[in-house]
Amino acid sequence: MTALPAPPAVTFASDNAAGVHPAIMEALRRANAGHAIAYGADPWTERLLATLRELFGAPVEALPVWGGTGANVVALACLLRASDAVVCTDAAHIHVDEAGAPERLTGGKLLAVPRPDAKLRPDDLARFLGWQGDEHHPQPKVVSITQSTELGTLYTADEVGALCDEAHRHGLFVHVDGARIANAAAALGGDVRSFTIDAGVDVVSFGGTKNGMMYGEAVVFCRPELGERARFVRKQLTQLPSKARFVSAQLLALLEGGLWLELAGHANAMTHRLYDQVRGLPGLVVEHEPVVNSLFPILPPAASDELRAWCAFYPWDEVRHQVRWMTAWDTAPEDVDAFAAGVRAVLEPSADT
Amino acid sequence: MTALPAPPAVTFASDNAAGVHPAIMEALRRANAGHAIAYGADPWTERLLATLRELFGAPVEALPVWGGTGANVVALACLLRASDAVVCTDAAHIHVDEAGAPERLTGGKLLAVPRPDAKLRPDDLARFLGWQGDEHHPQPKVVSITQSTELGTLYTADEVGALCDEAHRHGLFVHVDGARIANAAAALGGDVRSFTIDAGVDVVSFGGTKNGMMYGEAVVFCRPELGERARFVRKQLTQLPSKARFVSAQLLALLEGGLWLELAGHANAMTHRLYDQVRGLPGLVVEHEPVVNSLFPILPPAASDELRAWCAFYPWDEVRHQVRWMTAWDTAPEDVDAFAAGVRAVLEPSADT
Amino acid sequence: MTALPAPPAVTFASDNAAGVHPAIMEALRRANAGHAIAYGADPWTERLLATLRELFGAPVEALPVWGGTGANVVALACLLRASDAVVCTDAAHIHVDEAGAPERLTGGKLLAVPRPDAKLRPDDLARFLGWQGDEHHPQPKVVSITQSTELGTLYTADEVGALCDEAHRHGLFVHVDGARIANAAAALGGDVRSFTIDAGVDVVSFGGTKNGMMYGEAVVFCRPELGERARFVRKQLTQLPSKARFVSAQLLALLEGGLWLELAGHANAMTHRLYDQVRGLPGLVVEHEPVVNSLFPILPPAASDELRAWCAFYPWDEVRHQVRWMTAWDTAPEDVDAFAAGVRAVLEPSADT
Amino acid sequence: MTALPAPPAVTFASDNAAGVHPAIMEALRRANAGHAIAYGADPWTERLLATLRELFGAPVEALPVWGGTGANVVALACLLRASDAVVCTDAAHIHVDEAGAPERLTGGKLLAVPRPDAKLRPDDLARFLGWQGDEHHPQPKVVSITQSTELGTLYTADEVGALCDEAHRHGLFVHVDGARIANAAAALGGDVRSFTIDAGVDVVSFGGTKNGMMYGEAVVFCRPELGERARFVRKQLTQLPSKARFVSAQLLALLEGGLWLELAGHANAMTHRLYDQVRGLPGLVVEHEPVVNSLFPILPPAASDELRAWCAFYPWDEVRHQVRWMTAWDTAPEDVDAFAAGVRAVLEPSADT
Repeated sequence: MTALPAPPAVTFASDNAAGVHPAIMEALRRANAGHAIAYGADPWTERLLATLRELFGAPVEALPVWGGTGANVVALACLLRASDAVVCTDAAHIHVDEAGAPERLTGGKLLAVPRPDAKLRPDDLARFLGWQGDEHHPQPKVVSITQSTELGTLYTADEVGALCDEAHRHGLFVHVDGARIANAAAALGGDVRSFTIDAGVDVVSFGGTKNGMMYGEAVVFCRPELGERARFVRKQLTQLPSKARFVSAQLLALLEGGLWLELAGHANAMTHRLYDQVRGLPGLVVEHEPVVNSLFPILPPAASDELRAWCAFYPWDEVRHQVRWMTAWDTAPEDVDAFAAGVRAVLEPSADT
Repeated sequence: MTALPAPPAVTFASDNAAGVHPAIMEALRRANAGHAIAYGADPWTERLLATLRELFGAPVEALPVWGGTGANVVALACLLRASDAVVCTDAAHIHVDEAGAPERLTGGKLLAVPRPDAKLRPDDLARFLGWQGDEHHPQPKVVSITQSTELGTLYTADEVGALCDEAHRHGLFVHVDGARIANAAAALGGDVRSFTIDAGVDVVSFGGTKNGMMYGEAVVFCRPELGERARFVRKQLTQLPSKARFVSAQLLALLEGGLWLELAGHANAMTHRLYDQVRGLPGLVVEHEPVVNSLFPILPPAASDELRAWCAFYPWDEVRHQVRWMTAWDTAPEDVDAFAAGVRAVLEPSADT
Repeated sequence: MTALPAPPAVTFASDNAAGVHPAIMEALRRANAGHAIAYGADPWTERLLATLRELFGAPVEALPVWGGTGANVVALACLLRASDAVVCTDAAHIHVDEAGAPERLTGGKLLAVPRPDAKLRPDDLARFLGWQGDEHHPQPKVVSITQSTELGTLYTADEVGALCDEAHRHGLFVHVDGARIANAAAALGGDVRSFTIDAGVDVVSFGGTKNGMMYGEAVVFCRPELGERARFVRKQLTQLPSKARFVSAQLLALLEGGLWLELAGHANAMTHRLYDQVRGLPGLVVEHEPVVNSLFPILPPAASDELRAWCAFYPWDEVRHQVRWMTAWDTAPEDVDAFAAGVRAVLEPSADT
Repeated sequence: MTALPAPPAVTFASDNAAGVHPAIMEALRRANAGHAIAYGADPWTERLLATLRELFGAPVEALPVWGGTGANVVALACLLRASDAVVCTDAAHIHVDEAGAPERLTGGKLLAVPRPDAKLRPDDLARFLGWQGDEHHPQPKVVSITQSTELGTLYTADEVGALCDEAHRHGLFVHVDGARIANAAAALGGDVRSFTIDAGVDVVSFGGTKNGMMYGEAVVFCRPELGERARFVRKQLTQLPSKARFVSAQLLALLEGGLWLELAGHANAMTHRLYDQVRGLPGLVVEHEPVVNSLFPILPPAASDELRAWCAFYPWDEVRHQVRWMTAWDTAPEDVDAFAAGVRAVLEPSADT
């Protein structure tokens, strides 16, 4: 056993292991002022809609919901009809991490394309487009991409645009699972429109929980007519918050003044800091330079086990000995330094002597 | 137009229009301490389970969820198989106010029995029991009652027991929609066991939002084996909170020290206070003396409209000119007095001159 | 025990206990000529569409399916969206005899109105229309009636028209479960248009099995745009017959030349013959003079049991000692006479001595 | 354009383009004798169960259903619980050709493994087994294989056994889509037990339509306890035939006396005959020697188009210019010879001069 330094004050498990940003807590406190009609007929929710319309630069339709899986199924359920299917990658959260919720709750089918970098390409649609119109086959109707992806990669605005063009040319919609859309926006210069509405995206699951909120996300319909029945879908899929003002107030606190980009940018920077400190360590392989707030190093299982017992993080691909290190809005530089020191201690024991 | 006094500081619309109790806010603040593994693997959720086991006096299984409709569908989905059905009243929240979520999300069917007082009777099952074993008919498998009911009525412990006996005799489970279980417990002497687990109830949707929480409910399986796959059901039905500690911390703050009974008892008392002040006013009919925190008066439509423009509440049965006045944990005696003064001013305009 | 005469050659259980009419068998034989492309791309199915368009006097869309429950769920699934509901009576086959298939397969909710004669009235919609637009409530979207009804009653064309007017005024569609539409048409003078398309009906489940076919029904969209995606719905709900020519050939044999009205008219006449022979027998009560092919007498349980052991028929309402006697295309006058003789022998034992 | 000989009397499109075998027609005629209680309470269905039990050498549970997609969804729905998933190949009929019916009707998820020969391997399960117990991931619960496969390949009894062993070791069930089980049985020596019940298979969709029947399949539960609620599932999924005797009579005619193996063996032999005549023709590539009743040649698009205009068959993989030629119980040797002559005429025009 290596002699490990004191562990960091935070885990490197997930950005949803982090707590709630003080500004969000303060917004909750302020929103707790007397009565407000439930289910969204409140001033906070009204202001949220205005704020999102400003952010997207268009009269988007938007509905606060409880969580990320909820946002995705509400978004997809608004787009899918009988026999319709969603094309995504085989790393997609909707495919791998939502316990089959999309299928059970929307009745739609997922068509998962293997993609080692978790990024869909326009020509991934080709094989399913031949099914259109044939009643025996699932009908591809939605392309769902994740931005930033489950593997910490990013689509450029042009890449999203090319996917949207191909999808729209064939009558498909494009959905963005934006559980970490803030991390993407921060990494891409802060302009969320460029890789969503301007690129042609139809619906966005706009995440908040992983970026410093206590709970809550929003479903944003870039083409508002797609959300015409979203209120009914949200209610039926159990995603209508009762005291909705508290979701809206959090999202407002995040969006107004740019806190969302600041927090996500910080989380991204902490992963870069970590990468800079561990790259090149013996036995550690990082296939892709990080662009957002997660690193997927491959390292010896024994080292991994020792480190995990010391500071929590998740295995990713056990066959390849790949793990995930994730930073959050509340990861401090000292946490990164402490964590990197631990990694060094395990991988370069002699060096520390 | 009547000259109306200053309106109350709160609405009489619903207990979910109320805000969050300070002790709950404080619990949220305290729970916001660094990292905690998401999805329930946290100390708050562990302690919540222990607390609920103590409350129910048995090794119940319990899972925090986002909301009330969510709690109900998770509970029912754990009990229903193909072709199974739920017997409830035609006032049941699951039948009338959940947008068909139980049917779509569980695949089960609801068999609604008309009951003007929203209380199911053991012999209401009879007509469906003859269907058992016949594959053409929906198979009655769950009895779902609401306690306190949607109409502000209550089941006694004996009444629940009689329903459970009849249900169990025929192989049916009993579910309690306890969105307002605290109001029932407070009205029935504070012993929640008497009308749930001791009466034979199998599963309870245990409400918190309407009783001073910001959000969150729990599904409690009195017979833990019924909840064996509840974790999977909860996740698939989008009811697994990500930063679960914040739901559990609220429920703990409510349950530990008896705050839940105190708040609900106060809400109940406020409705009694209101009833005492408005009973006998000309044109106002209250068919049943209130027992929990809502009153369902019948009053002239013009009076109702005038009052609603002055202080928010909901119409209930528009055909019968019935409305609902509801009090909450934060309704103050002065609010009641102010509201009653308004009612008097509208119904007895001369008296005030 | 009564000395009973020789039982009839057929049962009085159901028109689906009957066999297949010789002309249908011959049509099957003739259709069995070499290869035909499966799934409906065959000349028989093409001709069926033309025949149904002639029958309805309009460019209806029509799809053959396997069975009656299948026809109903395909029809409803084409009309329902998230949160939508179907208004029907509490005697409706879709509510009572389809094992919850409509709910599970369409995701919609059924709102069943108690109606002792199994006939819906326009003002039955009123209580649900107030729910429109409120996302908490199921959204009434379809009115489903059965013609002839499960209780052997009939809607006049005017009654259907009044229902359609009320439904359409509020944006609802009207579906007719026509498992016994031939019996209705025969009883109403042979003009199927009068009480369907001309009355405003949107979709019809057009039955064949109970009227001499081996299997097969058709879903007929009076407004073809409602059936635009019906092919996909039919396939996904497992109701697309593989060797579809054999369903279409049967329906053609039934419709061409009017055999369907002839067979149903005969079945109706046999019930009238039975009614004429048993009315007024001691202990037997028939509340409504029969209009189609079923009689719902109330008679002493002992008599009922004795008769059922002698010739099969079904109990209907066990509490009221009501049974159902049903005649079919193959019930001969001698069968009716033999059955009536048995009824007399049981109810008037002395008379036969 | 080539001068093509007279086309064959049958298509090479599919075995469901074929008609009905005379012995089946005769069985339908004989079953059409007076009344029989509907929905399976008839002597034919009783005898079918006995016959299937003899065939499988065990007290299997078996239910006749309308069609192949229906058989598959009934079988799977009996095995799947919330969050459960089915592992299959990406060529599986349930994945590619059932319009998403398995997902919508069972609520389960399909996990499709790319396999160019349409045969699943035991180690294909590995990647999903790590998901077991983790509520975020779909829970692998059923392995579904097709025998013979959609690509005309076969599992040996040993291969099925190895899959069953691996599946059972991890608590998964094994389902066989046997739409063409007769072709497999005929090719493997006629012993259906060896590659189903004896190999450990839990449930079989037992096909009839593609082997000379008019319609009808059976779901066979090798472990009868798995079919305990199958009656309810079948009814709810619209797969309960009304006049069930006509399905059972057809299956009986097929099974009794071994007609099923005779017909399938003939269809297989016709494909071999075709293969022998076309192998080695210029421009035609057959990657795998046929083992059942289909051939998947690659040939120049122009040749393919010319042939399809002359005698119907389906393209398979348009990218690779692969088509499918399928023979049936009613394909005569002369039909094969005529078809092969056409192929030769197109591919070797000079040779024929």
